[in-house]
Amino acid sequence: MTTITAVTAHDVRFPTSLSMDGSDAMNKDGDYSAAYVVIHTDDPEVRGYGFTFTIGRGNDLCVEAARQRGLPLVGRSVDEAVADLGSVYRELSSDSQLRWLGPEKGVVHLAMAAVMNAMWDLAARVAKKPLWRLLAEMTPEQLVDAADLRYLSDALTREEAIAILAEKAPTRAARIADLEARGGYPCYTTSAGWLGYSDEKLRRLLQEAVDEGYRHVKLKVGSDVEDDIRRLRIAREVIGWDANLMIDANQVWDVPEAIEWVGRLAEFRPMWIEEPTSPDDVLGHAAVRRAVAPIGVATGEHGMNRVLFKQMFQAEAIDYCQLDSARLASINEILAVYLMAQKFGVPVCPHAGGVGLCELVQHLSIFDYVCVSGTLENRVTEFVDHLHEHFVDPCIVENGHYAMPSQPGYSAEMHEASVARFAFPTGGYWAEAVA
Amino acid sequence: MTTITAVTAHDVRFPTSLSMDGSDAMNKDGDYSAAYVVIHTDDPEVRGYGFTFTIGRGNDLCVEAARQRGLPLVGRSVDEAVADLGSVYRELSSDSQLRWLGPEKGVVHLAMAAVMNAMWDLAARVAKKPLWRLLAEMTPEQLVDAADLRYLSDALTREEAIAILAEKAPTRAARIADLEARGGYPCYTTSAGWLGYSDEKLRRLLQEAVDEGYRHVKLKVGSDVEDDIRRLRIAREVIGWDANLMIDANQVWDVPEAIEWVGRLAEFRPMWIEEPTSPDDVLGHAAVRRAVAPIGVATGEHGMNRVLFKQMFQAEAIDYCQLDSARLASINEILAVYLMAQKFGVPVCPHAGGVGLCELVQHLSIFDYVCVSGTLENRVTEFVDHLHEHFVDPCIVENGHYAMPSQPGYSAEMHEASVARFAFPTGGYWAEAVA
Repeated sequence: MTTITAVTAHDVRFPTSLSMDGSDAMNKDGDYSAAYVVIHTDDPEVRGYGFTFTIGRGNDLCVEAARQRGLPLVGRSVDEAVADLGSVYRELSSDSQLRWLGPEKGVVHLAMAAVMNAMWDLAARVAKKPLWRLLAEMTPEQLVDAADLRYLSDALTREEAIAILAEKAPTRAARIADLEARGGYPCYTTSAGWLGYSDEKLRRLLQEAVDEGYRHVKLKVGSDVEDDIRRLRIAREVIGWDANLMIDANQVWDVPEAIEWVGRLAEFRPMWIEEPTSPDDVLGHAAVRRAVAPIGVATGEHGMNRVLFKQMFQAEAIDYCQLDSARLASINEILAVYLMAQKFGVPVCPHAGGVGLCELVQHLSIFDYVCVSGTLENRVTEFVDHLHEHFVDPCIVENGHYAMPSQPGYSAEMHEASVARFAFPTGGYWAEAVA
Repeated sequence: MTTITAVTAHDVRFPTSLSMDGSDAMNKDGDYSAAYVVIHTDDPEVRGYGFTFTIGRGNDLCVEAARQRGLPLVGRSVDEAVADLGSVYRELSSDSQLRWLGPEKGVVHLAMAAVMNAMWDLAARVAKKPLWRLLAEMTPEQLVDAADLRYLSDALTREEAIAILAEKAPTRAARIADLEARGGYPCYTTSAGWLGYSDEKLRRLLQEAVDEGYRHVKLKVGSDVEDDIRRLRIAREVIGWDANLMIDANQVWDVPEAIEWVGRLAEFRPMWIEEPTSPDDVLGHAAVRRAVAPIGVATGEHGMNRVLFKQMFQAEAIDYCQLDSARLASINEILAVYLMAQKFGVPVCPHAGGVGLCELVQHLSIFDYVCVSGTLENRVTEFVDHLHEHFVDPCIVENGHYAMPSQPGYSAEMHEASVARFAFPTGGYWAEAVA
């Protein structure tokens, strides 16, 4: 019997603020960081890796919270745990003292994501399959047993959840074959559009995106409306009017301001406005959506938990659901959001970028197509070309598609050398930076 | 010039789980705790004290987050800071790296509450006034400058906020005199109704509450419906049918379950059902409210920020707003919630109990009556008789009223001996408990 012997958590930070990578109207100086969790067992060949994503200060809080979240796992049988990750999740999330600090939001929830991401990685490694395939081989009942449906029954019952999955189960293999034939799952790029980039750099990166086969690009907006107009004009000059252009305000506006500002950008025909206001404001998003149609409304990277998404669906507040793989509490909670999205007819276009999020979301999008939605219509997954070199099994994007992961796990393992060099504040990089 | 020299944060935990004080259907074993902040200056007579409240594990996360939140204050002039706490608040809350961990929720927001509570305590001490009086002597414009109105303009504009305060400004003195004549602000007690208490203890404590002059008592429900029926029957036998009985489910139900369960308890005519479901579920509370009327719906102790309360008001989801003085980011955010509540006609009955929350909310309720609502109708503030002995200026409750605080500050200072003895894990109490 293989037993979990330790859960370690590591503060890994990359100095991305130096190059303005990731700069937007709200987040001007992020240092992309991971609270990186390793689940150790008494077999050195059997480990699980996971993380949550932050942008610098406070990553240590997530690391310590993950350490506390992971403590109850020590001493358990790996086989028993991975056979019933729904029970593991429910036990960890029922810690009422830690629950008080959310509930189910903020640092303690990010830490749940990190720990359970590592448990799902472990489960897929034990099964010797990439995570998307592990999920695609689970029955509807097994998937629903793993899902966190608490507080959702007014929107989605257990029976409805099973029925959604059962409907697509007989044809899963055909959709796997379809994705393999296409070269993977379609994605779009945000790499061009950071607010801190010059017009010249913007134009060059957009042209590169077009040349690489992307049909969707996204630009940051919301700092200065005249700047936005100039940058969107450049974007349309480069990508033309047939390609899709998305814009992202990163929560800088109040609701009336969002409506007015997006109105001034409407001539550039954005496919969606992302994060027009507070990510907590369900009714505010619904008001923006009514006012800016046919421009779509997208949000979710700061969507704190499944209860928020339930309300976004119930209120018809969003056109695109951008759930985050390291903010929601791993597959257990993500399953519930995918199932609700399907019931309410909202396409899921997961948030990615940062560090490692692309590695995770490729599994989610493949699972969605194969097991839940059965369609690619209106669906496109974010891709940002940063920091993949730190991962042992990095995502591969070609011709605007995420290639199907083939290695066992959730693609979450980082190179030991990267963890050592960018460990904060004592790793080689940071020690040198201080000196 | 007095200067802030340090912001220290302390992990203080009381072993309340041993006596089942505070036990409810969700939180069975809380150890009431404070992440306790002290703002030190170069004048040993000038300090500020504040805290956020937790129930044990993870309090260390709030302590560390408060330390990080407070760092930018070091080196500032006390006089300049306390003269413009709105600017101080906005600067601290604009740290985009820490913001990522919320935004404005969970551990980093609890830490903001602790730090800004200490700053408001400092401001009141510098002014040599209890906080309620400091607030009651600020002009409408000064109060609105301190308030965090971001993301609220679709519900409350700055002009509306000023008008609400201006309407009541000329008659503030009369209401202060009125409260003094009444013996303070009316409160209710939860001390009797914890779920872990026996029927005999419940009956005895309820009788004591009646004897002490309370007209409102609250019982925990939601673990077993037959138990609830038996306990509510006991409650009505003791308090009669003229007194007000509230019930509190501490978030244990899904929405349909809440509606059904409350229906079974309706014969006991509760004034409100508190926390029937997830505290994040605005639309769920609205659905429960429509279904259980005329029983009122109350929530707020886990209300994460002003954007959540805005939606609770917009959706007509609650009859009573139970904002929390240590979860919302201090007076700056609390002001915004009081002003919205007034505009939408929802009475505010603040959550209290835990450790030190009663000390804080007495100031809030007095301020509300004097400056915002101008009425006591449907308003009653929670009181729980635990742990007051650890405070230098504890609240005084007599005949069902909080007496008006008279000492300078926000009543948040703890005895040094209490902090030392209950410091976790190295203080005397915990060191003995381990040994």
